[in-house]
Amino acid sequence: MTAPVYERVALIGLGLIASSMFWAMKRRGLAGEVTGFARSRATRETARRIGLCDRVCESARDAVEGADLVVLCVPVGAMGAVAREIAPHLKSGTTVSDVGSVKRSVISAVAPHLPGGVHFVPAHPLAGTEHSGPESGFAELYDNRWCIIVPADDATDPEAVARLRDLWEGMGANVDQMDADHHDLVLAVTSHAPHLIAYTMVGVADDLRRVTDSEVIKYSAAGFRDFTRIAASDPTMWRDVFLTNKDATLEVLGRFTEELFALQRAIRTGDGDHLFDYFTRTRTIRRGIIEAGQDTDAPDFGRGAPKS
Amino acid sequence: MTAPVYERVALIGLGLIASSMFWAMKRRGLAGEVTGFARSRATRETARRIGLCDRVCESARDAVEGADLVVLCVPVGAMGAVAREIAPHLKSGTTVSDVGSVKRSVISAVAPHLPGGVHFVPAHPLAGTEHSGPESGFAELYDNRWCIIVPADDATDPEAVARLRDLWEGMGANVDQMDADHHDLVLAVTSHAPHLIAYTMVGVADDLRRVTDSEVIKYSAAGFRDFTRIAASDPTMWRDVFLTNKDATLEVLGRFTEELFALQRAIRTGDGDHLFDYFTRTRTIRRGIIEAGQDTDAPDFGRGAPKS
Repeated sequence: MTAPVYERVALIGLGLIASSMFWAMKRRGLAGEVTGFARSRATRETARRIGLCDRVCESARDAVEGADLVVLCVPVGAMGAVAREIAPHLKSGTTVSDVGSVKRSVISAVAPHLPGGVHFVPAHPLAGTEHSGPESGFAELYDNRWCIIVPADDATDPEAVARLRDLWEGMGANVDQMDADHHDLVLAVTSHAPHLIAYTMVGVADDLRRVTDSEVIKYSAAGFRDFTRIAASDPTMWRDVFLTNKDATLEVLGRFTEELFALQRAIRTGDGDHLFDYFTRTRTIRRGIIEAGQDTDAPDFGRGAPKS
Repeated sequence: MTAPVYERVALIGLGLIASSMFWAMKRRGLAGEVTGFARSRATRETARRIGLCDRVCESARDAVEGADLVVLCVPVGAMGAVAREIAPHLKSGTTVSDVGSVKRSVISAVAPHLPGGVHFVPAHPLAGTEHSGPESGFAELYDNRWCIIVPADDATDPEAVARLRDLWEGMGANVDQMDADHHDLVLAVTSHAPHLIAYTMVGVADDLRRVTDSEVIKYSAAGFRDFTRIAASDPTMWRDVFLTNKDATLEVLGRFTEELFALQRAIRTGDGDHLFDYFTRTRTIRRGIIEAGQDTDAPDFGRGAPKS
């Protein structure tokens, strides 16, 4: 056990991400004391019951008092209000970070509230499951996943950035750094647009299900099943993602629609060569992902057959 | 070990599906002898090397000689030609089946070639992985998955249907029966349209990847990663699926595009309530799938973190 990276860490919002951070910090002794706050009383009670956080506070103000690191783990749309609330209670030299899936809008919403002497180092761990809430967290969530650190501006203190990087690496993540706009574009294509598409397809199936009496659910083999997992993610979080990463998401969806129309036309006109070439090309991407170590090559994701 | 369901089974085409059938039949002694044929010499050699089939033949004709059950395990677009080739060599009373993902077009392509006295009982096991080829098969592939039997017409011998059902149940599957057009519509929404959508999104990312220097691959968290798995499936198989289930696929894609446009508009206009309500609704479908036993509730599909 090495010395803690931060003596006092405050987690604001106690869902899957914060909960997993807590367990990952405890696993390696990365924080002296971890305080937590959640707006919902039920969440605070659950956190106390399962031992999530060393101390669960009754206000965000109490939680951030004396903290060396404050991590905002609330939906992107709520970041600004939380920042305004806690700002007067931050000690000088504190680092404020967050875990939001969109970075430009979080920076715009949070930065204006923070006093001088507070380091703002936004971050985004690319990890999650389709479950949410304090009980869904686990210490291994970030192991070998990426966390992207997005310093609010060029003037950000390099030492504050390096220390946050130490924390994330200690929690098992690989850390990269990029600017906010680039982050938002990359995430629009790897995550935000795919989520919206999955949501849409599941919604279409739901309409059809009413016609075909639950067969859609019963016969959901690979394709649709993977979509439903994506589409089961937290509705509040995703609403905020789309509203705050609007431009990049709409740009990627525009390209998507264009390509989809071309493939639909190939189907309609019976252009088998076009389809075959397209499908062959997409295989190489999958190979790239396996080589990049972001997934397993085991068939069907390494799942066994479901229990009957 | 009970008595075999069929004394002699012939598998035409030796990819993932046929290979898994062989190992599943062997697991329970469901077939006396299993012969196999694949058009490619390399595939036949691989099959012999790994002990796939009791006897690998040099022609489809040799493989079907004396068989009680012939299963066509070739791409949907190749079914008609294979049926024409083997038809003169089928013994009276034989059952011919297939494993194609589309049923109406297979029936149209195969049925005209089969002589009287041969029972044609098409089927479609809803199982697979993103891998293909003879070495990708395994005995458990069909455990607790659905196999849909689609008798070619109302005159199909009920005993031939019941026997094929026994085989699939013996291989671990749950068996249902429906007519060809209904099958094709249900599969368009649960499988065919989702696959085309995943292929499209992966193609769009590929375009962007050229701009952003492999970041798309590096940062592919949940959403996109699931799409790439789907989009890594066999190109020939999927080309044939879309060309042969054209009408149902295009109908579902039409609905999909309509819904996607509505969600894009909600993003553009900042209509958060619309997005939230939509995303909440899709969660219930996911719940239905878990309750129907077609997937696990374990986070992230029960996958652990990938090995570093």
